[in-house]
Amino acid sequence: MFIHRKELLHPVEVKDPDPRFGQFLLEQFGSATGELTAALQYWVQSFHVEDPGIRDMLQDIAVEEFGHLEMVGKMIEQHTRKLDQADVYAAPIFRIRGPGPHFLDSQGQAWTAAYLNEGGNVVRDLRADVAAEAGARQTYETLIKACNDEGSKTALVYLLTREVSHTAMFMQALDKLGYLTDPIFGNIPPDETVDIYLNMSQGEPDLRGPWNEEPRFRYVPDPKPHGNVPPNPTNPHDERGKLHAPKLTAR
Amino acid sequence: MFIHRKELLHPVEVKDPDPRFGQFLLEQFGSATGELTAALQYWVQSFHVEDPGIRDMLQDIAVEEFGHLEMVGKMIEQHTRKLDQADVYAAPIFRIRGPGPHFLDSQGQAWTAAYLNEGGNVVRDLRADVAAEAGARQTYETLIKACNDEGSKTALVYLLTREVSHTAMFMQALDKLGYLTDPIFGNIPPDETVDIYLNMSQGEPDLRGPWNEEPRFRYVPDPKPHGNVPPNPTNPHDERGKLHAPKLTAR
Amino acid sequence: MFIHRKELLHPVEVKDPDPRFGQFLLEQFGSATGELTAALQYWVQSFHVEDPGIRDMLQDIAVEEFGHLEMVGKMIEQHTRKLDQADVYAAPIFRIRGPGPHFLDSQGQAWTAAYLNEGGNVVRDLRADVAAEAGARQTYETLIKACNDEGSKTALVYLLTREVSHTAMFMQALDKLGYLTDPIFGNIPPDETVDIYLNMSQGEPDLRGPWNEEPRFRYVPDPKPHGNVPPNPTNPHDERGKLHAPKLTAR
Amino acid sequence: MFIHRKELLHPVEVKDPDPRFGQFLLEQFGSATGELTAALQYWVQSFHVEDPGIRDMLQDIAVEEFGHLEMVGKMIEQHTRKLDQADVYAAPIFRIRGPGPHFLDSQGQAWTAAYLNEGGNVVRDLRADVAAEAGARQTYETLIKACNDEGSKTALVYLLTREVSHTAMFMQALDKLGYLTDPIFGNIPPDETVDIYLNMSQGEPDLRGPWNEEPRFRYVPDPKPHGNVPPNPTNPHDERGKLHAPKLTAR
Amino acid sequence: MFIHRKELLHPVEVKDPDPRFGQFLLEQFGSATGELTAALQYWVQSFHVEDPGIRDMLQDIAVEEFGHLEMVGKMIEQHTRKLDQADVYAAPIFRIRGPGPHFLDSQGQAWTAAYLNEGGNVVRDLRADVAAEAGARQTYETLIKACNDEGSKTALVYLLTREVSHTAMFMQALDKLGYLTDPIFGNIPPDETVDIYLNMSQGEPDLRGPWNEEPRFRYVPDPKPHGNVPPNPTNPHDERGKLHAPKLTAR
Amino acid sequence: MFIHRKELLHPVEVKDPDPRFGQFLLEQFGSATGELTAALQYWVQSFHVEDPGIRDMLQDIAVEEFGHLEMVGKMIEQHTRKLDQADVYAAPIFRIRGPGPHFLDSQGQAWTAAYLNEGGNVVRDLRADVAAEAGARQTYETLIKACNDEGSKTALVYLLTREVSHTAMFMQALDKLGYLTDPIFGNIPPDETVDIYLNMSQGEPDLRGPWNEEPRFRYVPDPKPHGNVPPNPTNPHDERGKLHAPKLTAR
Repeated sequence: MFIHRKELLHPVEVKDPDPRFGQFLLEQFGSATGELTAALQYWVQSFHVEDPGIRDMLQDIAVEEFGHLEMVGKMIEQHTRKLDQADVYAAPIFRIRGPGPHFLDSQGQAWTAAYLNEGGNVVRDLRADVAAEAGARQTYETLIKACNDEGSKTALVYLLTREVSHTAMFMQALDKLGYLTDPIFGNIPPDETVDIYLNMSQGEPDLRGPWNEEPRFRYVPDPKPHGNVPPNPTNPHDERGKLHAPKLTAR
Repeated sequence: MFIHRKELLHPVEVKDPDPRFGQFLLEQFGSATGELTAALQYWVQSFHVEDPGIRDMLQDIAVEEFGHLEMVGKMIEQHTRKLDQADVYAAPIFRIRGPGPHFLDSQGQAWTAAYLNEGGNVVRDLRADVAAEAGARQTYETLIKACNDEGSKTALVYLLTREVSHTAMFMQALDKLGYLTDPIFGNIPPDETVDIYLNMSQGEPDLRGPWNEEPRFRYVPDPKPHGNVPPNPTNPHDERGKLHAPKLTAR
Repeated sequence: MFIHRKELLHPVEVKDPDPRFGQFLLEQFGSATGELTAALQYWVQSFHVEDPGIRDMLQDIAVEEFGHLEMVGKMIEQHTRKLDQADVYAAPIFRIRGPGPHFLDSQGQAWTAAYLNEGGNVVRDLRADVAAEAGARQTYETLIKACNDEGSKTALVYLLTREVSHTAMFMQALDKLGYLTDPIFGNIPPDETVDIYLNMSQGEPDLRGPWNEEPRFRYVPDPKPHGNVPPNPTNPHDERGKLHAPKLTAR
Repeated sequence: MFIHRKELLHPVEVKDPDPRFGQFLLEQFGSATGELTAALQYWVQSFHVEDPGIRDMLQDIAVEEFGHLEMVGKMIEQHTRKLDQADVYAAPIFRIRGPGPHFLDSQGQAWTAAYLNEGGNVVRDLRADVAAEAGARQTYETLIKACNDEGSKTALVYLLTREVSHTAMFMQALDKLGYLTDPIFGNIPPDETVDIYLNMSQGEPDLRGPWNEEPRFRYVPDPKPHGNVPPNPTNPHDERGKLHAPKLTAR
Repeated sequence: MFIHRKELLHPVEVKDPDPRFGQFLLEQFGSATGELTAALQYWVQSFHVEDPGIRDMLQDIAVEEFGHLEMVGKMIEQHTRKLDQADVYAAPIFRIRGPGPHFLDSQGQAWTAAYLNEGGNVVRDLRADVAAEAGARQTYETLIKACNDEGSKTALVYLLTREVSHTAMFMQALDKLGYLTDPIFGNIPPDETVDIYLNMSQGEPDLRGPWNEEPRFRYVPDPKPHGNVPPNPTNPHDERGKLHAPKLTAR
Repeated sequence: MFIHRKELLHPVEVKDPDPRFGQFLLEQFGSATGELTAALQYWVQSFHVEDPGIRDMLQDIAVEEFGHLEMVGKMIEQHTRKLDQADVYAAPIFRIRGPGPHFLDSQGQAWTAAYLNEGGNVVRDLRADVAAEAGARQTYETLIKACNDEGSKTALVYLLTREVSHTAMFMQALDKLGYLTDPIFGNIPPDETVDIYLNMSQGEPDLRGPWNEEPRFRYVPDPKPHGNVPPNPTNPHDERGKLHAPKLTAR
């Protein structure tokens, strides 16, 4: 069960309200990268994840994200207080829908559960969560750069920080499971094409990097149809499909 | 520019067509985790990613994914050949829309670009790509387990394999950039709450793990409002917000 | 801020799991009439509603609805435990997406914030809330009638009951504001056509009832264009547009 | 069957066309609270509502709403006549899609049937209709306040008025059925928790009002899990679940 | 203004109700190719089309389509009468949402105005209308083939017939404007590449037909980047871009 | 399989970048009438179309459209280079989502496969394709008229030209099949109402034109319910439902 306390997780004090910036803030309330996406994604995962520790972590973070959603909502509420004094066609979403937050992005598109990535496997879920945090962090950076109000900025840096914190937690969980840097998971071993790199986009510059270099990968400069791949001199993966070739370096 | 060759990247030979399984296969043609999502996500990223090597890699993989989409489409085409012999209410999507693939998921929901995660930063993009591959791989595993046709199964294992391959490539690219295992990226340093873990979901079991253990994290068992966090005895992150505390192990 | 306790608001004990019924239950997790709609609608209203008592009530009920969403999620989790033993094409959503709840309706359509009705005025909000509860109650009745599991049924009757309770609360709030049975609210007085009933659908049976009878309404049997309405002998509304004519009876 | 007459239900004469205001008007053509929503919601209900009088009323009002949709469309047509003289980036929807109305809201989001609330029970339908009218009225008030053209304003006040009229009709119908002020309807009696109020959002101010006061409601200041509700000294509802406690006052 | 008469444009008498077929019929009520799409597309076009005769035709056909939508709705209403006698999991949409039509397709996806093609130019509109009728006709053929009830079949053949009739009308209108068989319309003359055919999909079979044969088209067997097209020996189009080359044959 | 070459099909050189115009250009990248719609619609049709020549043509044109999508993407990339120098609230989509193209329309609405028209019959498909090209051409004309940059204009005229070329190809294919100007196709002969024109929208002006004139059509000035159509003196269609009456003229 959920309980709500009528205080914010972290203070939000807008000093210089601007409904136009309030409309931008909808990105973190009702867009793909917003707090609703984070909260619901982690929370819905907690129902099917079987590892009790990771399930607990997902619940902890999900509930924190609901608290962040509330903070963003309060910030929007404060930015739209002066709505009557603004140009009618500035911040049109609030003019039409009324002040305060709505589950829309800054362009007026309704939030959809199509934004959520989850289901079937804890590794898949956690990788989706690292990605969700990356999107949220990126949007916070964008908002901070567009922000002229110091009060909003402080709260936004706090919120960005917490996305970093959650990323660290999800990475630790993946690492504990052994899947932070291992490309394969699940029960179906890959076939012998697993180390092939297909140069499907041709012409200058056809660049090489650790993502397509030998011996980790077999580079096919001019791929042909029908799986006409070069012979595989050595077996690059063990019986579970784990790749033997040079390990990724971590930091 | 794109060129098409009228041969598949890898053979697809359905031996025992089943329109109901064909409807399941729509998941990899027109669902959130399908090949269209992968192809368009990587390709649209290639327009804004500035690193020329990673841009090239994104294009190579995106174009390969278009080839995979074609393979899945051919598989669906073959599974829906015997449509007339099936019960009218089996595989209703093909009965109503006609045989062959459609950009719908297996429940008839139209594909939407809301499935795409991309924009603004190459680290964000690559993390989204690792997540996209995890979702695609999971769906392939599901389909393989539900599949009774050996021809389909062989092609599906190939397609699952390539998702693993792409994951390896995206991880190598993240690793080269230094962001495979580092929770932070971008230009805004996090604040002093970055190592806090908030135990927002309380009661048995309140478990501990590497995602909330000292010294990497400061665990707050009963969080209070207003950012009332415990004092931070040591600075866990450097001036860029990079975390000093115990590194993640990689494999 | 939100806090979660790892216990349900009310017990949920499925005795006879059935993934097909689990798929039906998605209606109360991720459909238009489900608990997510209720929780988010009431909660988002609480940001802009100015009456502190009603704001508090909206928060209380919203948080309770999150607890209901959790109960429905747990019920779905329990019904999808035996997924492996079911026919592959039964309960296809769980087969494809994995067991446990998802933010989809029973036909696989993603939840969208287009389901929410809120904004701009507390009377509008509360009327939308009475309607939301009516839809939720209707769906619970449907599920109860389709349900063969006693454990599920008990939980569903509890959840239906609470929708009734919330309806009573919203009606009391509307009544206190004076708008439970008064058709008009807001700042724009209606014009002199307010008591006109236009018989736009013609032919047998053209029935009469309290919704189109004199003296409350002026009935126009064969409406003409250009607002060609009959003269209004008496002014049926006062200066605020409040209607004088026979009051509605309440119970 | 429908017949159309090439004259408006009520005159629309825009004197001072402004494409930007035309874009705002799309809210009543193609948004959630617009006339299309009203027309289709009431009309689709008329197919399953069994009470012949209410069915007739729903058809009458639905057809009138189609006439209102036409009026709003004409208003938009007139406001977008001077499109060529406007700044290219003002009113971008008309610049891109062409002049005249489109089934989009003012932010360019396509109309969706997800906006409709209907099905299964006439009380549910009529409560949804009261809510739909409240949303439409609120949007008309917003448009009137943003409007500088007297011709548009007169038509908008007429349209707002008719929403009030329809609300009165729907309320009369609910009242005749006995469900205007009665929280419960349908065939499933609620359980003994029906009079419980759960104070889920805690902290100052925890306000009391008719929606949570004794004897109508049993107030639980600090709810516990597992339905741990206080004993119910008196049975607040009769065998049908009708509540005995103090009736709502009506006006 | 619209007027409704409580009789159908054409009789609908279902003799053997089948809720499963009723669910299929939703395709013509709430899908992309259904009657709502047709009605709203033609009607919304009538606001911006300037030719008074074509505007009148669009209104006539739109209003007829509303009558067809009503017929389909009545058919669904009749097919869902025996809902209680059907298996709970047959026709799930009606079980959950209640009997009668809903603005959903047969897979439960909500109707969206994204289905509409209209705006900016009467030729564009009429071509979209010919396409809309083709989709509607195709779906009626599909339904007729899946139908076991003679009463439904008769009504469906009537409805299919009327789509043919409308197609003939739209074609006549395009022909009168001079754009039934002329590929170009509008105010921007095409450039000198207008007669180029690019063989972008290569390999056997690379077939030729009137769509890529000389002299009407210049065939480029192996297209190169940068618009590297062969020289154009003769100017295939006049100053307005009208093509001189062999005319299309009409019937 | 697809291959990509790192050069554009046709050069794109923006001389005067303007992020606001870049946002308009999203219409051809991620809107209903954009290049993605064209590419995916023609390509998905190629899976079920049985005529090998038309299948080949659909693939050729689809692949060319992917090349156009790339050109539009590059144009957007170039227009959003100077994003940092623009007003924060100009071109908000790029400010929030980052520079470069996204699969959104110019109002921020995500691309959806609901835009696609395809399935079941080649005539239906090709008519949908002629309509798709008409929409795309119309949008290009709109963009060209709004464009101040000569480099963009040249590329846009090329792209508009190619839509005309494709229209000519689709028309030739329809003509070869015998369905460019014939209203009927498919296997269900229409009934005897096929030549009826119903004057459903009544009042001045009730205009006549080739779409409702004798002898091609029987005009019903005041339609009655129940299919009460006038007697049909001559059979206007042969056994296949082909219409005998005056043929359409072609050019």
